[in-house]
Amino acid sequence: MVDMVHQLQDTICDAIASLDESTYREDEWTREEGGGGRSRVFSEGKVFEKAGVNVSVVHGTLSPEAAAKMGGGHDLEGEDLDFFATGISLVLHPHNPMAPTVHANYRYFERGEGLVEGSWWFGGGADLTPSYLFEDDAKHFHQVHKSVCDRHEVADYEAYKAWCDDYFHIKHRGERRGVGGVFFDDLRAQSKTACFAFVEDCASHFLDAYLPIVERRMSIPFTPEQKAWQQVRRGRYVEFNLVYDRGTKFGLTTNGRIESILMSLPLTARWEYCHEVEDGSDEAALLEVLRQPVDWLNG
Amino acid sequence: MVDMVHQLQDTICDAIASLDESTYREDEWTREEGGGGRSRVFSEGKVFEKAGVNVSVVHGTLSPEAAAKMGGGHDLEGEDLDFFATGISLVLHPHNPMAPTVHANYRYFERGEGLVEGSWWFGGGADLTPSYLFEDDAKHFHQVHKSVCDRHEVADYEAYKAWCDDYFHIKHRGERRGVGGVFFDDLRAQSKTACFAFVEDCASHFLDAYLPIVERRMSIPFTPEQKAWQQVRRGRYVEFNLVYDRGTKFGLTTNGRIESILMSLPLTARWEYCHEVEDGSDEAALLEVLRQPVDWLNG
Repeated sequence: MVDMVHQLQDTICDAIASLDESTYREDEWTREEGGGGRSRVFSEGKVFEKAGVNVSVVHGTLSPEAAAKMGGGHDLEGEDLDFFATGISLVLHPHNPMAPTVHANYRYFERGEGLVEGSWWFGGGADLTPSYLFEDDAKHFHQVHKSVCDRHEVADYEAYKAWCDDYFHIKHRGERRGVGGVFFDDLRAQSKTACFAFVEDCASHFLDAYLPIVERRMSIPFTPEQKAWQQVRRGRYVEFNLVYDRGTKFGLTTNGRIESILMSLPLTARWEYCHEVEDGSDEAALLEVLRQPVDWLNG
Repeated sequence: MVDMVHQLQDTICDAIASLDESTYREDEWTREEGGGGRSRVFSEGKVFEKAGVNVSVVHGTLSPEAAAKMGGGHDLEGEDLDFFATGISLVLHPHNPMAPTVHANYRYFERGEGLVEGSWWFGGGADLTPSYLFEDDAKHFHQVHKSVCDRHEVADYEAYKAWCDDYFHIKHRGERRGVGGVFFDDLRAQSKTACFAFVEDCASHFLDAYLPIVERRMSIPFTPEQKAWQQVRRGRYVEFNLVYDRGTKFGLTTNGRIESILMSLPLTARWEYCHEVEDGSDEAALLEVLRQPVDWLNG
């Protein structure tokens, strides 16, 4: 998994650099309690306003409270509070309001030696956040992920799609963050090999899921009003990440590297009091699918 | 207190309207569980990018869990889960980066009939959030609040100043939100009359504390770089409000009126990856006092 996340970071950053005609800033960081990571951020390119791809490989000792909250191996003793975790996390925010933001994350967690069933698990997923709805984009993104899931006995697209809608829920707004994708956690079915094969397949198809979408939207002309709507949607993105996202909250309260955790926030965002959209507008069409998730592949 | 908060809303909104050469949008709202409020928001004026003043008068029945968390009257029985609360809350965000944002809040809470000692209390305070530091502004703001506190036996400026620094702490940044002011809660010393007299005195001096500051800063010329720094500071304001502010978190999880709760967020904000300031710059001078609170009146 450690090799995989680093190779994936290279592959994805190469693809972004090529499309964006730019390069990334890289920061290697270490964590006082053990391990560290490598953050890469694009911020001055043609396509992306801000794009961050972070990998981390960390280890340490869980507090008993943290261990109890975390699940996995509850019946293990003493030394098994040791943990190891690795993952890749990325968020890409394009300039063009017609091109959606995307987020993906693939992670592995291990307690003790990770040999006992229940002492290791995988998690991950990817989700798409448009400001303007193009149904073809949502269908393509979901179809790529469904095809991956269908190749693996350990995976279940329908369940992961529903989990994604459930997780990326801005409860106080009654809106989902975007048009979803897949989300899974505590994946520990069958063998570690089978689980890893699925996660690797999923991760290695991230670019297939997203690149065609951004390529066909990144040069569509747009108005200042459409840009302003994107900024309002970016505000909602900030609300989700700071109020609900478990990874962000965990990072902020456990002495994580702040800049890598908050890399996910957009460059700019906007909060207008009582912002309303016109009935029948493109903005209203987006809100409708955020308020009532759609089964994109059988709708 | 109900009359006071409504009169104060009128007085403060009149003062803003006059300075801002604009008018507010008013929304009256009701709360399903009992009571309601009146929100007023300025959004197109000369001085303020966004300015909201909200009053609420709500009542209902606390869940036993909420009551236990909330403090006050723990030994009271059954019917005393009834509560009554009223308050005024305001946040003013000026356009000009030389003019500081200000927040104030004055509130009263009552359990049951509010007759028993410990079944009622007041809370409140005001704090100043500059993007650029003018020491005279911080001193003036603190001096007005100290003078009010010094007139009332129930109040303690030194304690409330420290409480404010402690409360408006963006822990993951190691920064305070601004240069502080006063913050107090659970104020139930001596008589209700004495406590109310202090809160009323404090609230009625809010304009004295803030208006002279915004008046002398609102027309200072500024550069696009200074505006961008203000936007970065606004991002920090969003981080505090969404991650730490108790009122915001309480509102988001208890079916409050979202637009009134999030009225406090700035119109726009910015998150640059690894933003850094130059040594010896005005931006660095601000960060220094945010990282290490200053005793403005005895410094």
